Amino acid sequence: MKLLRVGTAGAERPALLDAEGTLRDLSGLVSDIDGDLLADSAALDRIREAAAAGTLPELDAAGLRTGPPLGRIGKVVCIGLNYHDHARETGAEIPAEPIVFFKAADTVVGPDDTVLVPRKSQKTDWEVELAVVIGRTARYLDSADEALGHVAGYAVANDVSEREFQIERGGTWDKGKNCETFNPLGPWLVTADEAGDPQDLALKLWVNGELKQDGSTADQIFPVGEVVRYVSQFMTLYPGDVINTGTPAGVAMGHPEPKPYLRAGDVVELEIEGLGRQRQEFKDA
Amino acid sequence: MKLLRVGTAGAERPALLDAEGTLRDLSGLVSDIDGDLLADSAALDRIREAAAAGTLPELDAAGLRTGPPLGRIGKVVCIGLNYHDHARETGAEIPAEPIVFFKAADTVVGPDDTVLVPRKSQKTDWEVELAVVIGRTARYLDSADEALGHVAGYAVANDVSEREFQIERGGTWDKGKNCETFNPLGPWLVTADEAGDPQDLALKLWVNGELKQDGSTADQIFPVGEVVRYVSQFMTLYPGDVINTGTPAGVAMGHPEPKPYLRAGDVVELEIEGLGRQRQEFKDA
Repeated sequence: MKLLRVGTAGAERPALLDAEGTLRDLSGLVSDIDGDLLADSAALDRIREAAAAGTLPELDAAGLRTGPPLGRIGKVVCIGLNYHDHARETGAEIPAEPIVFFKAADTVVGPDDTVLVPRKSQKTDWEVELAVVIGRTARYLDSADEALGHVAGYAVANDVSEREFQIERGGTWDKGKNCETFNPLGPWLVTADEAGDPQDLALKLWVNGELKQDGSTADQIFPVGEVVRYVSQFMTLYPGDVINTGTPAGVAMGHPEPKPYLRAGDVVELEIEGLGRQRQEFKDA
Repeated sequence: MKLLRVGTAGAERPALLDAEGTLRDLSGLVSDIDGDLLADSAALDRIREAAAAGTLPELDAAGLRTGPPLGRIGKVVCIGLNYHDHARETGAEIPAEPIVFFKAADTVVGPDDTVLVPRKSQKTDWEVELAVVIGRTARYLDSADEALGHVAGYAVANDVSEREFQIERGGTWDKGKNCETFNPLGPWLVTADEAGDPQDLALKLWVNGELKQDGSTADQIFPVGEVVRYVSQFMTLYPGDVINTGTPAGVAMGHPEPKPYLRAGDVVELEIEGLGRQRQEFKDA
């Protein structure tokens, strides 16, 4: 299923994009797309059955904003340097273990919302990423296979990053990852049964129409199941948590000088095979 | 005011510890102690007036668990190496700018709840910290003085840390800071008007009755107002966000070998002048 949330920010209603591409209202069936729903297989089955029966009311998509496809997000765990080609372009060694950092859930915005270039930023960068949405509590998992059973679905994320704040201002990467609006998510949460093999998805990102990132999750150093298993050794993952699993080559930081960092007026578009497409206009904070 | 939340985990009710040390029920007046309440000065005034008028019902404290004094916590921002004496004991340079890392809000537990030593942990450590609770949205603030006006109050935090996960496993510190139960908070949220000068508070921590940390917020490298101002340049702080402002000397990592890291059965007690006392038994995860 393609689950989504439409409407004004903070007041989105749950919806489904059906197999014919028609937007269907889920608000008569569930209160939101959130961790509680994803942990409730009976509720998910009711949506599936209603979709199959054709009983879900149609929603007029015209003029409707698409919000992030997940409400009440718990935490956003991020994996750094998780593609061979991205590690090469940044001159970094291949990590022996996944690199973990955080984005605050309050940085999450809709897939087509405005993204703000922070004040005093010189190095705002893009990162198309496969976001993993947790559906079952994951704690000290034994295997990557078991871990995949804790994934509710997948979405597109832009892990927007300010490289000076991230790398040149001391301390951890978190300083450059948590500026407001820095985590566009969506348009859809595609349930795991429909997303296909998570290690065989094409990821692309364009800036002002020019293709900048063109990768595949096949190039991930630590695949999705291993990432979930690994992270569960250090923290408990709950339904409604998100993991951004890293970005392929082609970020601004990886370009020769002068590096094409983002400025107000730039437009970033990104997509992952089967998971939909985002479009953000950048403005000054 | 000393605000707190009492009852079973996840179902705490809001309460007040009055000037006579009597526990008063606030559930007839407000739904919870959370960011919405802290941003609502009229609601806070109603609590103040009811307390002064003596109309708040008494609560029987016997057998009541104390939860964290803040519900629906947004994000927990942490400042590393923020005391001169702690930087010295760890052999670290004095940071030129605050070091920022994160704890997930789901690591927060009550002040006397059990803390779990993670599986395979050899280096679980303690850190008594002054926690700052945000009451007004803070975004690109101009001065430390202005920033103090965005602080709703203060609380005791134990920034429990696994040093091997934090330092020896690659990537950022977050890996050793986010194990479940790693952020006891409380007992009280003491409003800023009653907490006194935040740069003149004694902090103490004992392990199995032995005094290990004995510091003062006067030793902070970056004082509270400057921390809030600084962080607001990189991310937006919302009502109900928390900042753990660093720990003074005396952590296990700062001891000579063999360092006295925590094991199941250990008891950690900590207090900050005017903000109350915590007591945690450590058990195996």
